[in-house]
Amino acid sequence: MSRIYQLGERKVIEIMMSYLDVMPKMLVPFWDDVSAVDLGRGRVGVLKTDMLVWSTDIPRRMTHFQAARKAVVMNISDLAAKGVRTTGILISFGLPKNLTEKEIIDLAKGMNAGAREYGAYVLGGDTNEAEQIIISGMAFGIGEKEKLMLRSGAKPRDILATTGTFGKTAAGFKILLEGLDAPADLRKSLVDTVFMPRAKVEEGVALAESGAVTASMDSSDGLALSLYDLSRSSGVGFRVDRLPAAPEARKFAELHNLELSALVLYGGEEYELVFTVNPERIEDAKQALRRVGGELIEIGEVTEEKEIVYKDEDQLKPIKAGGWEHFKF
Amino acid sequence: MSRIYQLGERKVIEIMMSYLDVMPKMLVPFWDDVSAVDLGRGRVGVLKTDMLVWSTDIPRRMTHFQAARKAVVMNISDLAAKGVRTTGILISFGLPKNLTEKEIIDLAKGMNAGAREYGAYVLGGDTNEAEQIIISGMAFGIGEKEKLMLRSGAKPRDILATTGTFGKTAAGFKILLEGLDAPADLRKSLVDTVFMPRAKVEEGVALAESGAVTASMDSSDGLALSLYDLSRSSGVGFRVDRLPAAPEARKFAELHNLELSALVLYGGEEYELVFTVNPERIEDAKQALRRVGGELIEIGEVTEEKEIVYKDEDQLKPIKAGGWEHFKF
Repeated sequence: MSRIYQLGERKVIEIMMSYLDVMPKMLVPFWDDVSAVDLGRGRVGVLKTDMLVWSTDIPRRMTHFQAARKAVVMNISDLAAKGVRTTGILISFGLPKNLTEKEIIDLAKGMNAGAREYGAYVLGGDTNEAEQIIISGMAFGIGEKEKLMLRSGAKPRDILATTGTFGKTAAGFKILLEGLDAPADLRKSLVDTVFMPRAKVEEGVALAESGAVTASMDSSDGLALSLYDLSRSSGVGFRVDRLPAAPEARKFAELHNLELSALVLYGGEEYELVFTVNPERIEDAKQALRRVGGELIEIGEVTEEKEIVYKDEDQLKPIKAGGWEHFKF
Repeated sequence: MSRIYQLGERKVIEIMMSYLDVMPKMLVPFWDDVSAVDLGRGRVGVLKTDMLVWSTDIPRRMTHFQAARKAVVMNISDLAAKGVRTTGILISFGLPKNLTEKEIIDLAKGMNAGAREYGAYVLGGDTNEAEQIIISGMAFGIGEKEKLMLRSGAKPRDILATTGTFGKTAAGFKILLEGLDAPADLRKSLVDTVFMPRAKVEEGVALAESGAVTASMDSSDGLALSLYDLSRSSGVGFRVDRLPAAPEARKFAELHNLELSALVLYGGEEYELVFTVNPERIEDAKQALRRVGGELIEIGEVTEEKEIVYKDEDQLKPIKAGGWEHFKF
């Protein structure tokens, strides 16, 4: 019988889903970033839960404050990708017996900071004994049914875009996990994106309000996997014409002779929004992002063929379904 | 500096809470069973998250199905104690790499069963790699603000009551964890309460509808600690005149020469509702429970003095603040 490490996370979820009764008229299907409950009068309660496990998700030099903050921010990011602001956060902690009072305080400060940065509040939580630190966050927000940006609406000829550049976290992980180095300034900027991720909440809400977006998700599993997820949910493919490489990632790639496209495509934990826009409405989407101090980076186009490719010096190369996935090695 | 095992769970939560910004006009205070968000028009979104950790929360012979089901049921129970039906469940799993496909399927079936038994649906989830199984459940339901049964409304001379008897889980844990034995029938009934707990959802909703209840919580930490929690939140004490001992617990106590009161008071994971009723409305509360096939067991009275005592053959004896608490040994 198969063991979990042979299956990979997506297969595990697929198996689990196949044994669940599906709520009639479920507003957001399985496989999207969030779940939703009908509140009536066109409103929906949007819910997300995601967990950080110390040994697998937390690089060694990350602090307790940063870890708890991130556990909050990553849940807020999923709501943001649907265009919804988080109202409240709940956290369930697993805590080892030898944790110090200072570490407890830092965890508390971190979860509070993560929520308050985005206008949300921690509403409650729970502690449990565990062998290592587990931080399971859940976010709740209220959205409008009509404005919810799902993964499923991308259409051929829509414009593929992101709210930011990619590659910094992949470089940051190479510094933290593989011991690669960089000049102090660059190093700090790269490592910071891992330790202090930002959720694109105002951007997500502005895009949803614009009505110009046809599909959206956050890129927490990396750009490549995000494209695969959007592809599966929308039944389309993508041609990436310009990789949205962060200048810092480019510098780091040159420094270590790494392939820039790999840093950009196969990183993860980036929390940028990856979305598709009705080409007739692209100016509306751009303006919406500008109004909140963001930017819209056009990176390519939605295609009828379900392939996912990128243009590398006029050559179309396949993007592999790789990136951050638990249980797959 | 203090370590967590010296502090105990309640102190850890107290420390954490003191570092959190409190949402203005928070509908349900910290320390209650659930959190809540205002939905407008008198309605509230009610939220709860609680986690099961395999090594500390799951007795050895409990199956994967039962563990996942319990992780769902214990969250549903907290909403039930406030008078709210659960609409949707999300689960975040930590899963070890060597888990088999059959175990994954059993976890999925268990969470689905736990939700469907109470009319709820699993709306989504998430898997993560961990060294042991972690099941973090979250429940969402919609309630009416005016009808929410908090921990804080008990008044002197209110009647103290429960939806059921106590002591079976404590006996069940003695069988499972300490190796005590019992005749097959008795054994099965005691162990079943640990493996297949039931949430008192219809009872909670009926009590809330009756408007007769002044305070309520579920007894997942045991009867004694529930009384301490209600006492703290309501600023009152309790005199328990009749311990609500389950006949099976009585038999087990006699069999092993155990103190019955200890099984009844200091068990846990029982998921009965412990609540207080306006004495002028006691018949309404009783009728409400009868209508859903439940029963109201009067066990004592709310007192002005903040002591918590029980009558043992006409002697008043103190109830200690003991029961199920993580991080306290």
